[in-house]
Amino acid sequence: MMIDKALIARDNAARAETLKRDYDTLGERLDRQGIAIDAIKAKVAAYGVAIPSWGVGTGGTRFARFPGAGEPRHIFDKLEDCAVIQQLTRATPNVSLHIPWDKADPTELKAKAETLGLGFDAMNSNTFQDQDGQGRSYKFGSLTHTDAGTRRQAIEHNLECIEIGKTLGSKALTIWIGDGSNFPGQVNFTRQFERYLEATKEIYAGLPDDWRLFTEHKMYEPAFYSTVVQDWGTNYMIARELGDKAFCLVDLGHHAPNVNIEMIVSRLIQFGKLGGFHFNDSKYGDDDLDTASIDPYRLFLVFNELVDAEIRQAPGFDPAHMLDQSHNVTDPIESLIVSAMEVGRAYAQALIVDRTALTGFQEDNDALMATTTLKTAFRTDVEPILAMTRLESGGAIAPVASYRAAGYRQKVAEIRPAVSGAGGGIV
Amino acid sequence: MMIDKALIARDNAARAETLKRDYDTLGERLDRQGIAIDAIKAKVAAYGVAIPSWGVGTGGTRFARFPGAGEPRHIFDKLEDCAVIQQLTRATPNVSLHIPWDKADPTELKAKAETLGLGFDAMNSNTFQDQDGQGRSYKFGSLTHTDAGTRRQAIEHNLECIEIGKTLGSKALTIWIGDGSNFPGQVNFTRQFERYLEATKEIYAGLPDDWRLFTEHKMYEPAFYSTVVQDWGTNYMIARELGDKAFCLVDLGHHAPNVNIEMIVSRLIQFGKLGGFHFNDSKYGDDDLDTASIDPYRLFLVFNELVDAEIRQAPGFDPAHMLDQSHNVTDPIESLIVSAMEVGRAYAQALIVDRTALTGFQEDNDALMATTTLKTAFRTDVEPILAMTRLESGGAIAPVASYRAAGYRQKVAEIRPAVSGAGGGIV
Amino acid sequence: MMIDKALIARDNAARAETLKRDYDTLGERLDRQGIAIDAIKAKVAAYGVAIPSWGVGTGGTRFARFPGAGEPRHIFDKLEDCAVIQQLTRATPNVSLHIPWDKADPTELKAKAETLGLGFDAMNSNTFQDQDGQGRSYKFGSLTHTDAGTRRQAIEHNLECIEIGKTLGSKALTIWIGDGSNFPGQVNFTRQFERYLEATKEIYAGLPDDWRLFTEHKMYEPAFYSTVVQDWGTNYMIARELGDKAFCLVDLGHHAPNVNIEMIVSRLIQFGKLGGFHFNDSKYGDDDLDTASIDPYRLFLVFNELVDAEIRQAPGFDPAHMLDQSHNVTDPIESLIVSAMEVGRAYAQALIVDRTALTGFQEDNDALMATTTLKTAFRTDVEPILAMTRLESGGAIAPVASYRAAGYRQKVAEIRPAVSGAGGGIV
Amino acid sequence: MMIDKALIARDNAARAETLKRDYDTLGERLDRQGIAIDAIKAKVAAYGVAIPSWGVGTGGTRFARFPGAGEPRHIFDKLEDCAVIQQLTRATPNVSLHIPWDKADPTELKAKAETLGLGFDAMNSNTFQDQDGQGRSYKFGSLTHTDAGTRRQAIEHNLECIEIGKTLGSKALTIWIGDGSNFPGQVNFTRQFERYLEATKEIYAGLPDDWRLFTEHKMYEPAFYSTVVQDWGTNYMIARELGDKAFCLVDLGHHAPNVNIEMIVSRLIQFGKLGGFHFNDSKYGDDDLDTASIDPYRLFLVFNELVDAEIRQAPGFDPAHMLDQSHNVTDPIESLIVSAMEVGRAYAQALIVDRTALTGFQEDNDALMATTTLKTAFRTDVEPILAMTRLESGGAIAPVASYRAAGYRQKVAEIRPAVSGAGGGIV
Repeated sequence: MMIDKALIARDNAARAETLKRDYDTLGERLDRQGIAIDAIKAKVAAYGVAIPSWGVGTGGTRFARFPGAGEPRHIFDKLEDCAVIQQLTRATPNVSLHIPWDKADPTELKAKAETLGLGFDAMNSNTFQDQDGQGRSYKFGSLTHTDAGTRRQAIEHNLECIEIGKTLGSKALTIWIGDGSNFPGQVNFTRQFERYLEATKEIYAGLPDDWRLFTEHKMYEPAFYSTVVQDWGTNYMIARELGDKAFCLVDLGHHAPNVNIEMIVSRLIQFGKLGGFHFNDSKYGDDDLDTASIDPYRLFLVFNELVDAEIRQAPGFDPAHMLDQSHNVTDPIESLIVSAMEVGRAYAQALIVDRTALTGFQEDNDALMATTTLKTAFRTDVEPILAMTRLESGGAIAPVASYRAAGYRQKVAEIRPAVSGAGGGIV
Repeated sequence: MMIDKALIARDNAARAETLKRDYDTLGERLDRQGIAIDAIKAKVAAYGVAIPSWGVGTGGTRFARFPGAGEPRHIFDKLEDCAVIQQLTRATPNVSLHIPWDKADPTELKAKAETLGLGFDAMNSNTFQDQDGQGRSYKFGSLTHTDAGTRRQAIEHNLECIEIGKTLGSKALTIWIGDGSNFPGQVNFTRQFERYLEATKEIYAGLPDDWRLFTEHKMYEPAFYSTVVQDWGTNYMIARELGDKAFCLVDLGHHAPNVNIEMIVSRLIQFGKLGGFHFNDSKYGDDDLDTASIDPYRLFLVFNELVDAEIRQAPGFDPAHMLDQSHNVTDPIESLIVSAMEVGRAYAQALIVDRTALTGFQEDNDALMATTTLKTAFRTDVEPILAMTRLESGGAIAPVASYRAAGYRQKVAEIRPAVSGAGGGIV
Repeated sequence: MMIDKALIARDNAARAETLKRDYDTLGERLDRQGIAIDAIKAKVAAYGVAIPSWGVGTGGTRFARFPGAGEPRHIFDKLEDCAVIQQLTRATPNVSLHIPWDKADPTELKAKAETLGLGFDAMNSNTFQDQDGQGRSYKFGSLTHTDAGTRRQAIEHNLECIEIGKTLGSKALTIWIGDGSNFPGQVNFTRQFERYLEATKEIYAGLPDDWRLFTEHKMYEPAFYSTVVQDWGTNYMIARELGDKAFCLVDLGHHAPNVNIEMIVSRLIQFGKLGGFHFNDSKYGDDDLDTASIDPYRLFLVFNELVDAEIRQAPGFDPAHMLDQSHNVTDPIESLIVSAMEVGRAYAQALIVDRTALTGFQEDNDALMATTTLKTAFRTDVEPILAMTRLESGGAIAPVASYRAAGYRQKVAEIRPAVSGAGGGIV
Repeated sequence: MMIDKALIARDNAARAETLKRDYDTLGERLDRQGIAIDAIKAKVAAYGVAIPSWGVGTGGTRFARFPGAGEPRHIFDKLEDCAVIQQLTRATPNVSLHIPWDKADPTELKAKAETLGLGFDAMNSNTFQDQDGQGRSYKFGSLTHTDAGTRRQAIEHNLECIEIGKTLGSKALTIWIGDGSNFPGQVNFTRQFERYLEATKEIYAGLPDDWRLFTEHKMYEPAFYSTVVQDWGTNYMIARELGDKAFCLVDLGHHAPNVNIEMIVSRLIQFGKLGGFHFNDSKYGDDDLDTASIDPYRLFLVFNELVDAEIRQAPGFDPAHMLDQSHNVTDPIESLIVSAMEVGRAYAQALIVDRTALTGFQEDNDALMATTTLKTAFRTDVEPILAMTRLESGGAIAPVASYRAAGYRQKVAEIRPAVSGAGGGIV
């Protein structure tokens, strides 16, 4: 079901010569700046971003969902789709699961993933929806519900996610909850947050020694007046209260308008609490658009912080990199391919920043040259580096082109039944 | 199935004396300011806001929907719920339908509504979802789709809504579409808007002479990079291009952060293009929260513009008033009752603004006294006026209390089957 | 120069009877709800908010400043203006000074204030402007400047503010700096914040035992890409790093669009780090508009948190209350009078919230009744309580009317020379 | 006083060989895509953006202004600074004047400009500040003031600007006013806008036949509750009401958060009312940061609309291009040099978009390939094209480097006296 290797090879062969020339030209240009292109290539080759299992299905809004052809039916289909992305990009070795959406026999899951050459990144729990047969409803909250039984149910679910993850080889649990309120007065902020801390402490206690707990903040949605973990300030408080294995997860679309996200990243690194990322892009709210599709420079500025921390070996710096997007109008596999490449592009661009010069300009308050130093790196087209890493590791020089040429979507559409899309959250 | 009149009467009887006293006290206070309370009461009594049929069901988000007990099964159940709101508040005489959600035999619908003492406000078309059996998909747009056949289908749907509305006695069609794009470059803004105008002109041509066409702008969602009718500027262009029967509908939650909505209302009145409102409240995006639950002063400021226009008899000023909310954590009937009262409250407060004094302060640039004039009206508790109009017109002094006492929800829950809420737009 | 007491007495006499009647009516109504109006009045009478010395002068923008008549020439004029506000409102017993704007002989200042019946609230340092004769420029930062000498100068200035404050009887220092950057890359976020912490630790070390240090966060302006203390998250980190005498100051206009400020207040209380407030209102940015002039319900919701903390005696809860506004189009004295009353109004409204009922509704997830409980208190016109406290404490029932009747502004205009307003920051 | 040509020649000589190689490499790459690099270069060479005279001085905020060395003393100094920018970039042939800041004998001004090889773009009036000796104050408005005499004064000032412009050879007047309000109720929106239209009609009547009138919208600042021309919707109404010579000016920093600016540009083009641009960048409000310093992709998307209109020869499409920035922490000349280059870069990138492919993807709803088509152009480093146009037209390959090498700032600092920066708008 994967892409035919011969097809990729043919496609690569047709592009290899041009790539070689572009790579050499870029190498020469970087060399002028004192940068060895092969060293950059090696770093990019070693870099990967995890695919969210839910990302390979077509997403939707509260108004509607418009599924495409060949939607994955279950986690095994999803893993196959993820394997295609990894096969072509060589930059997405791991998958992040969402329970109960991806619930299946863990041993079987692990075996399937190994067959496909995939590993598992952070486990994601789900207490923002009610599942059929569930004892208590999350309508009014989960880990922060006023009812102790509901909180217990939510805690147990998270502990179950850890258990599943242990078998799979995951090393982290991500908690995102929608708990909050829609009306002033609906909840008491203080007591709600006390309940949050109490509940997450129980989950934290169930964490294996070599695991990390990621908590995720979000300004709003699905709660529209207040959200219990509304911003990085509250998120940082949580990570501090819980302990050394607790870290903050940053989703690029979860902030207030105009907020300087790269600065939040910097603060969390400085205080040893950056857990990782859910990469995507947004123009308005939690739009979950494709990474770097709206503001590529912002993504670069985030990576500028990451590379800065990497180089100065900031204590405790080891963020998890995951995509988290909703693909409403594209083939999800194509969007994830392109997004994985965009993340790698931002990393490569951040790697070629002349940091010695930058530091000098900063010390001298030469704002113009400092920012020009960043822009010079950003406007360098590093595509040849990315493409060369793909070629050298068995992927595709032009992953989307190869994917389309292979007709993968049409093939799975013959096996996977068409899905009706009527209805969103509102009816 | 409606609320027992005897129960309301008993409830009112227990509250009438206190209400009388509060009303008299307020009357005396207003009298000091030269305002006749009975004149205000008469205006408030004549005022009504339409209920959206979709508002009586529990709403949801793309993450989940958590239905309550006794959810309405179809438009006839919805009309009964609307009748309860009207019975208790006497402020919601009309219902606004959504096609195809409310599709039924129009004659039967009209008869049912008459039985319940309800009329029909604007018809709403739906081309933002795919319906089972629909010929072409709206995934990539409806009235603006690049495919002429899809545009044709969407146009025909709108014309059908007009036909249904004719039978029902509606006098307006509201068009809101989600067409836009999720990626820079996905659509050509100009050509998309040309298609929009071309399509709506066809719909406009099918409008009876005594009908109005309302077009609704919205900044974003479900499209997350661009939306074809993104703001009142584009909406105004549309109303101008279409003709004298075309007007702009203002939904309070559809604007960019920080935007001064009352000023938009003023501009549309000034240029004769204010069609009406979808009242609700929002803190972040199109949250569809209960009217005045987040920022009651903003609602008052909108009504301040409306009363100003009413008094100076602005040409063509005749806006439609409708609620449009999503009730995710409350009993929808209760939320609509309270929201209808909040709209009436803002109207009453705007009516008692001392406009002669206000104009004088404005002429003199006495900003402090001008704003104090508004605040004085706003902080007047006009509840006795609202309650007295309800009492005198056969409604309830305390609608929510009477509603709860009547046990309506429990009764309908025995008839209407429980609904599963699993799933939102994302899976 | 103060307002003639006889004039106030006459004005009050003309209004006293009506006030008495309104007070009694309100008392009866509150009594029905089980609330003793006199107890509320006593709490309101004991409440005060500090006046910022800079607030009595006409403010401006970067485009222009348009001074009014009788602008205060120096801190002694400013104190007299503050005394007028306190005389009329009895709600503004303290003044908050800004150094070096208010620099004068501390002993003389203290004597003058005592004569006027005023005390001193927090001292404010200023390292966001260059003063004539200053050794090093703050163009590129102050406490975070890359140059150690500039940091030293800024530290010394803060220590000097403490020294002045000691003489005056102040018990707190407020630090707000504009340090940040206008370009990506201009500063290294991490090193800049390290310098911030290092510098403020030195200031903290100079703090007397019975003083508190307030640090103030602000999203942007005057820095337009990044600001070193950009939000409450960073502010909380600072307060934690510095120690038990360090607290966060919340200015209502310093947050990102749509942010839930009352929730931030709640978090800071919960973690023992709420230092106090700079009250004002805003629609767009740090507009420094009059308190409650734009969104009075938001101010009420903040006070709802404060009263909640007061009642449950939250550990370490003792916030400082200060106004911080820019009066560009009003007589600053009038704006400060009204704003002090608005703060008192929000406090009174929060005091009459039925908290037992509220807690019950919260426990039961009865969102509608919970929010109605808040709204019921908010829409109660508590003006009679505020006016009665003023009357009983020797102030004016109608402060603005009495102020205007007294002709204070005209009188000082005869003494204080007219000021030219040409120029703002841009030329 | 201009830069020594020999110095530029030497600097260029040292860089020419590398540039040639990079240009050829890029040419080859573009050739593969069917694009002739020389055609692109010719278009870029013909493109220019006007310098705002006020931009060559150091800007400030309401908090402070920190002047640099060698600040221009008057318009003649400013013209010399502009000439340096033009000399080095060959992309800024015109200057946009601000009256009365730049008031001088028009004939002398014209002669000086001709000597320097500069022309004049749009004239800018100023009724947002009071000037010494001015009859009536603009504190409460100018063109919309309630006082007819004040409006008259503002109208006359604009007519005077036209007179000056006639002598200078300008062909446009730009009107931006700060009129609005700081409090709800301070102004009557409708009457204020009526006064606006009445006043601007008088100015419009004084416009020579071959001139254009540009009106500029802005969300807020200096007015903080409402602004009379608050958005493009109101701006469009104005241009329509006034007539065929009236157009809307778009300043990139004058919109609400999250607004899709490129779509506004598209709408104004479609309805024949795009007058031109004030280019800059912003992260929060009207930050007036250097163009493309915060979000370069957004600037590209704006130019994508402009090139689209250029190619399809949209009727009436002829926008004026001007920079409008506040340089608070950089040498203004350097910022303007870089910004002019950034505008040219966005234009060049937009020119190499494969529009045939783009249209095809749009027709097919292939969102992924459509957006990839734009991104491919955006990530192309077109610097060699820009540099080559400079080299070939007598400018500098590396303008900032040459500027620094020439020591221009130090030289003028010897002549122009140092300026004190104490004070911003707030004191």
